Amino acid sequence: MTKAELTAQIRYKASYLCVGLDTDPKLLPAFLKKEADPVFAFNRAIIDATASFAVAYKPNLAFYEAQGPQGWESLQRTLAYIPKDCFTIADAKRGDLGNTAACYARTFFDPAAAGFDFDSVTLSPLMGHDSVEPFLAYKGKWAILLALTSNAGSADFQNLRLEGGEQLFERILKTSTQWGSPENLMYVVGATRADRLAHIRTLVPGHFLLVPGVGAQGGSLAEVSAAGLTPEGGLLVNASRSILYAASGHDFAAAAGAEARRLQQQMAQHLYAI
Amino acid sequence: MTKAELTAQIRYKASYLCVGLDTDPKLLPAFLKKEADPVFAFNRAIIDATASFAVAYKPNLAFYEAQGPQGWESLQRTLAYIPKDCFTIADAKRGDLGNTAACYARTFFDPAAAGFDFDSVTLSPLMGHDSVEPFLAYKGKWAILLALTSNAGSADFQNLRLEGGEQLFERILKTSTQWGSPENLMYVVGATRADRLAHIRTLVPGHFLLVPGVGAQGGSLAEVSAAGLTPEGGLLVNASRSILYAASGHDFAAAAGAEARRLQQQMAQHLYAI
Repeated sequence: MTKAELTAQIRYKASYLCVGLDTDPKLLPAFLKKEADPVFAFNRAIIDATASFAVAYKPNLAFYEAQGPQGWESLQRTLAYIPKDCFTIADAKRGDLGNTAACYARTFFDPAAAGFDFDSVTLSPLMGHDSVEPFLAYKGKWAILLALTSNAGSADFQNLRLEGGEQLFERILKTSTQWGSPENLMYVVGATRADRLAHIRTLVPGHFLLVPGVGAQGGSLAEVSAAGLTPEGGLLVNASRSILYAASGHDFAAAAGAEARRLQQQMAQHLYAI
Repeated sequence: MTKAELTAQIRYKASYLCVGLDTDPKLLPAFLKKEADPVFAFNRAIIDATASFAVAYKPNLAFYEAQGPQGWESLQRTLAYIPKDCFTIADAKRGDLGNTAACYARTFFDPAAAGFDFDSVTLSPLMGHDSVEPFLAYKGKWAILLALTSNAGSADFQNLRLEGGEQLFERILKTSTQWGSPENLMYVVGATRADRLAHIRTLVPGHFLLVPGVGAQGGSLAEVSAAGLTPEGGLLVNASRSILYAASGHDFAAAAGAEARRLQQQMAQHLYAI
């Protein structure tokens, strides 16, 4: 998907909501467990209920890998089911050497390899340019780099101050923008730090930012939107647990849809304000 | 596996060789392609031929993921086939938030999850302590953190100088040693930098170092051994392509065994010298 197509979707749906498909088999409604593929049955219902309000879906690979080969099949079915006008993110946080990075890029971008045709993959940039470039070689695909995450441990290294005064996450942004363009690079920025988000927006004015941590992790949508929105959208704000587990009975999908609609309506107001 | 058990294996086999099972289906000998699971058939033959000379096996996940669910099955079969006295490493370079990290830890350490019972997983420490701790909570299991890698891109961030003069990889070592102990933490250190290895040995005198990059990537085994060996061993030196693809015909396993034996015999001399 191109940046222009993503922006068009954001305008059409008046939404920059990303639904995080962090589907934990232990948290599924009991009545789904008789399905042949309960994880896919859950995801399908969530997608049906939220696709009018969301522009992106982001399965976190950890939840699928923890089910072994069967989990990868659930993920294949889920990805195939997501409407083609939605942006898809493999939240894999991969990062490896050149030829291995190429192998991971094939995994997520080349349907003939592992059966996946994601629009984007999240990556850890610690190993540098040659761990990211193989992903940027795919036309119409995106690399989404960790810049500043929302967990406590982000303070251990991402905030370290370098000689000259820059912080590591600032250097990651400045260096990595040279590897690609706002047409194929995005950044993960934790929503618990809206003040930092405004600063990051000045460093990467044209790049989309993927913001996890709104909802269950406690970030404020209003602050994030004020700091990060651009005329092209420029934001994908992710909510996972607050949507997926909004209710736990037969009404889980309706409750998920209602929560997605609530977030979308707030987003529409923020979009109209810029 | 405990550190004492790993050290005992190193002494028994007079080897600190790790065989990297980076099995690329495109590089398999043609006659294996008629097997039901060619990747496993190849790995089984490589393991049979090298197990007398190697103390560890390290499949890089990228090669298996790129085959989809079938690749995960090949990896399950391969892991089950590795002799129990060998140390096993899931070279996955994962790194994610606390609850997602816990999910990845289950994937690789809890056989009831994805069918894997690896001794260790490689991790990217960029997200800090809470991305690593869930792995350290498993008794007898190991986290192997990227400290200094051997690719060109390692210069982008790992070598950056911090305020006060330390380099980022030095800070990663110093900070992360507080998260665990030499009984459950190892480090990845690229072999193309033997001078750096000697310095790193002074920072983490008691930790095992996993050294890729000997062989096809060009590091010198003699230099690495002089810089990194300790009375407990302290090193796992990985070779992948130089063993796996030592020959491409019906003699591939014999050639792999001969190359593993050649490396083991050099390692024996280095072990006797300390």
